[in-house]
Amino acid sequence: MQDLSDVKLLLFDVFGTVVDWRGSVAREVEALGLGLDGAAFADAWRRRYLPSMQAVREGQREWINLDGLHRENLQAVLERFGAAKRLDAAAFEDLNRAWHRLEAWPDAAAGLQQLRARYTLSTLSNGNTSLLVNLSKHAGLNWDVVLCAETFKAYKPDPRAYLGAVELFGLEPHQAMLCAAHATDLRAAAACGLRTAYVDRPLEWGPDRRGDIPSATDRFDLESRDLRDLAAQLHCSSN
Amino acid sequence: MQDLSDVKLLLFDVFGTVVDWRGSVAREVEALGLGLDGAAFADAWRRRYLPSMQAVREGQREWINLDGLHRENLQAVLERFGAAKRLDAAAFEDLNRAWHRLEAWPDAAAGLQQLRARYTLSTLSNGNTSLLVNLSKHAGLNWDVVLCAETFKAYKPDPRAYLGAVELFGLEPHQAMLCAAHATDLRAAAACGLRTAYVDRPLEWGPDRRGDIPSATDRFDLESRDLRDLAAQLHCSSN
Repeated sequence: MQDLSDVKLLLFDVFGTVVDWRGSVAREVEALGLGLDGAAFADAWRRRYLPSMQAVREGQREWINLDGLHRENLQAVLERFGAAKRLDAAAFEDLNRAWHRLEAWPDAAAGLQQLRARYTLSTLSNGNTSLLVNLSKHAGLNWDVVLCAETFKAYKPDPRAYLGAVELFGLEPHQAMLCAAHATDLRAAAACGLRTAYVDRPLEWGPDRRGDIPSATDRFDLESRDLRDLAAQLHCSSN
Repeated sequence: MQDLSDVKLLLFDVFGTVVDWRGSVAREVEALGLGLDGAAFADAWRRRYLPSMQAVREGQREWINLDGLHRENLQAVLERFGAAKRLDAAAFEDLNRAWHRLEAWPDAAAGLQQLRARYTLSTLSNGNTSLLVNLSKHAGLNWDVVLCAETFKAYKPDPRAYLGAVELFGLEPHQAMLCAAHATDLRAAAACGLRTAYVDRPLEWGPDRRGDIPSATDRFDLESRDLRDLAAQLHCSSN
């Protein structure tokens, strides 16, 4: 384990790392009673996430927050599943806000509470502010501050997101640590000089597939099984 | 009492409304052991606050956050009190961060906790993000989100601060309410279409003076004695 004694600020990826987007979205899709395969629908919706942000990152389109990208992607996925005409405008908008109601992984609320006693805890998500605030209230997650792509008008892995968070607190990059279940996110944070904690989430994409996991050559400062394990490794587990 | 049933978001002024800046700064100044009158020093420091922000608001200088303005103003006040050469650089910087360690009014933490069960709670302060996060952690204040002048690069009473907060949540202005001890702040929020709750803080400037209190012609949606009273008036008092 690295010397992490100068870390003050923990930044958390949210989708996948703290909350189970796939199970939550799948349940809401199935609850519509349209006979849709919830997990397949959630996966299809989520797969459009990276390419849709890429166009913003590369300056091909102006800033638009994740609620807006989700709305465009939802329309496309509904068309692909042949269900676009089966939701009225209010039901469509409500389904888009399923991302404001994601459920946390079982260890998340308790792990964050333990970590918060010693560290300043922030989100650093590509979700927008209201999405993260509503989701956190819904799932009982308590942060010291909610920072996100919308705060900096830059989607991760754009360095402006990581360095923007560090700068707001007047810290050096090595005084902040990104905690995430995705290697791409952690590599980008490390390239900016931040510390990194991998959080394993084997069920993010369901039991049969893995997402953006570390390669054999990745070296992160910490590797944890979940947020309670992360708290234990950072000596925050007594409460 | 107005019909406030569509209010979702409570925005809180912080200095004076939630925390006792004067008593806290005075104690830190006196603890330096330089023989300074703490309350007089705090008042002098605070009196430079409005004019220093005004230059930013009017575009006479580029954006600078409140830590930066406090630093400039601290230097000027130390000179006026004949103490500029009696603090080394580290002590100067530590004193500037007294604003990160302000104590809350006795009712604040409990009142906010009651209100948070029903509303989304945000700061809307001219303090900067790290100041507000550190202060809240120090004083045990829990928010759903920390928004401030720094978020919008606009100091209250600039309309961009009030409307920026409303817009982040996709709300209409009348769905948000500013809670503040200062009439100027409340009038500016009302002019933007927000609801307004006055919070009386008779001791903000000490026992002998009053600050920016309502005039006889002001009409705010609520008038409260403190944050527990505000919670009671908003039917949030059972916990």
